[in-house]
Amino acid sequence: MAQRIGQHTIRLTHPPRVIAHAGLAGKKEKDGPLGAVFDRTFDDVTFGVPSWEEAEQTLLRTALELAAKKAHLPLGSLDLILAGDLQNQCTASSFALSGCGVPFCGLYGACSTMALSLSVASLLIDAGACGFAGAATGSHFCTAERQFRKPLEYGGQRTPTAQWTVTGAGAAILAATGHKSDPRITHVHFGTITDLGVTDAANMGAAMAPAAAKTIGDFLRDTGTAPQDYDLILTGDLGFVGSELLLELLRRDGFDLAGVHNDCGCLIFDREKQDVHAGGSGCGCSASVLCSHILDEMRRGNYKKVLFVATGALLSATSALQGKTIPGIAHAVLITQGTEETT
Amino acid sequence: MAQRIGQHTIRLTHPPRVIAHAGLAGKKEKDGPLGAVFDRTFDDVTFGVPSWEEAEQTLLRTALELAAKKAHLPLGSLDLILAGDLQNQCTASSFALSGCGVPFCGLYGACSTMALSLSVASLLIDAGACGFAGAATGSHFCTAERQFRKPLEYGGQRTPTAQWTVTGAGAAILAATGHKSDPRITHVHFGTITDLGVTDAANMGAAMAPAAAKTIGDFLRDTGTAPQDYDLILTGDLGFVGSELLLELLRRDGFDLAGVHNDCGCLIFDREKQDVHAGGSGCGCSASVLCSHILDEMRRGNYKKVLFVATGALLSATSALQGKTIPGIAHAVLITQGTEETT
Repeated sequence: MAQRIGQHTIRLTHPPRVIAHAGLAGKKEKDGPLGAVFDRTFDDVTFGVPSWEEAEQTLLRTALELAAKKAHLPLGSLDLILAGDLQNQCTASSFALSGCGVPFCGLYGACSTMALSLSVASLLIDAGACGFAGAATGSHFCTAERQFRKPLEYGGQRTPTAQWTVTGAGAAILAATGHKSDPRITHVHFGTITDLGVTDAANMGAAMAPAAAKTIGDFLRDTGTAPQDYDLILTGDLGFVGSELLLELLRRDGFDLAGVHNDCGCLIFDREKQDVHAGGSGCGCSASVLCSHILDEMRRGNYKKVLFVATGALLSATSALQGKTIPGIAHAVLITQGTEETT
Repeated sequence: MAQRIGQHTIRLTHPPRVIAHAGLAGKKEKDGPLGAVFDRTFDDVTFGVPSWEEAEQTLLRTALELAAKKAHLPLGSLDLILAGDLQNQCTASSFALSGCGVPFCGLYGACSTMALSLSVASLLIDAGACGFAGAATGSHFCTAERQFRKPLEYGGQRTPTAQWTVTGAGAAILAATGHKSDPRITHVHFGTITDLGVTDAANMGAAMAPAAAKTIGDFLRDTGTAPQDYDLILTGDLGFVGSELLLELLRRDGFDLAGVHNDCGCLIFDREKQDVHAGGSGCGCSASVLCSHILDEMRRGNYKKVLFVATGALLSATSALQGKTIPGIAHAVLITQGTEETT
């Protein structure tokens, strides 16, 4: 059973465990600061298939298969898979999972999908609706470029606030019980769509920062905790521009995240050497970083309490061309390692 | 708490109630057999806004506001809204709900979204994760035509197997308790992605029928029930072609649905007079029919047990152009009225 605390936060009575996880990434991500910590990296991001869309599907499926393998489960033995992605009509997930024989719950949260899938999966396991659930998402630079921006062959210039879509995927397997070293999800917080009027589709960080600030502020108020009660408050892919705005917005709201905050979009690439402008983005950014680096560090005991806040920009190429503003959303899960629990 | 029965069906220990619902539709749907039973119909499907996308957003928001009003709740007092749609990156839902101040769980199930949103909402209410939840989806003929098919101005010919995207929306408000006349959701069944190799994007009924047959067959086996145990087994939008295939596939699987089955895509338009070829489709088809006609009939006691099986074709314009097959999915909820419960 779950229990509502404060206005919008949900506390799980029997926090599910992340019994296995896998973070996969492409060539550029391999060359970045986390290159050595991903479970698997791929120099050939075509995966030998005929389209970028299919390459992304392969990556997502591979992440789920590897996570299931690490949990010593055949993929087909899961009770439910929860996934979503950035391809129009979420075809990366549906084509990746067609034929696997597992019931499927499709989600859409743009780049917030990893936190959204972990949220729903945790609640359903806690409720007894599934025994083993897979939560996954991914993205591919080349699919995203041609769908949202320009044909790759065009070689378009990028503005300084633009982020680089990660070629990567992350998957986690959740269960009601597991080993004591398996991190647990103790709290879930569904975000509220927040739109402060940003219209620049080349500045997703600015569009998503207000949603992240709202979710983090609401979570801290609901739980009566301070930023310093966490080892890490990890946002999804605000990048360098969005992270600065987040800290500023939260300072105005009375919360100082200095020394506690980091962002998957800042962690995944080397800003100086990799020419990614404002950092990484895409569903696969926070998914690959969380499901390799962060959860591995939690297993080693280096982080005990991580508030994972993945952020999504809920625009489409059509809405951008129509001059609409960019609504943002940020979903959060509190992940703990060890016996301690937050109220 | 939920309890798994059989292989993939979930039985809710404390079945949530649908305390209010609203089904809205456009001009062509008003002229059809259900024209008089929708909560509201609109002759001007532009809604006075500048784009078809925005018109669809207005329709979805209006359905949720009306359902909330019928539940005597301000929309902003809901604990969670679960919604999705067919626009690229689900912008109908995110733009419709931006600014409403309610936590949002975005879903993607194509035309199966009404059953998917009811499924997740029911489980989260049963688990205590929310008190009041809104489940909604919608579609708009003009948005769908230009996004998936041809510009409206082109006046393209339609093949005999093609279905007509419904301009409509449906919304339901769920709660743990309610009036004894409020229908309850007792069982949830997440579908498995099923693909028998159909590649004709103008024959969605054929693409989705195998998924519906799998879900219905699995549900009947899991619950140990027969088709005749239900007053109605209502599929989402298989239309005339898909419905015939469904009955044939289920006959081969040992289940005879004759006299028990109907389909929202067959109910919503007059096949002879309205020139819709194989019937209605779109997220708004099953949503508007369920949330007006069907749930109203349940309140009147005319149906006691309805197995609602919404179907989705998980393709995109890109996957269709790439010659890929069309994966289908069908999610099911068992809705009961009165005190009786199924095992």
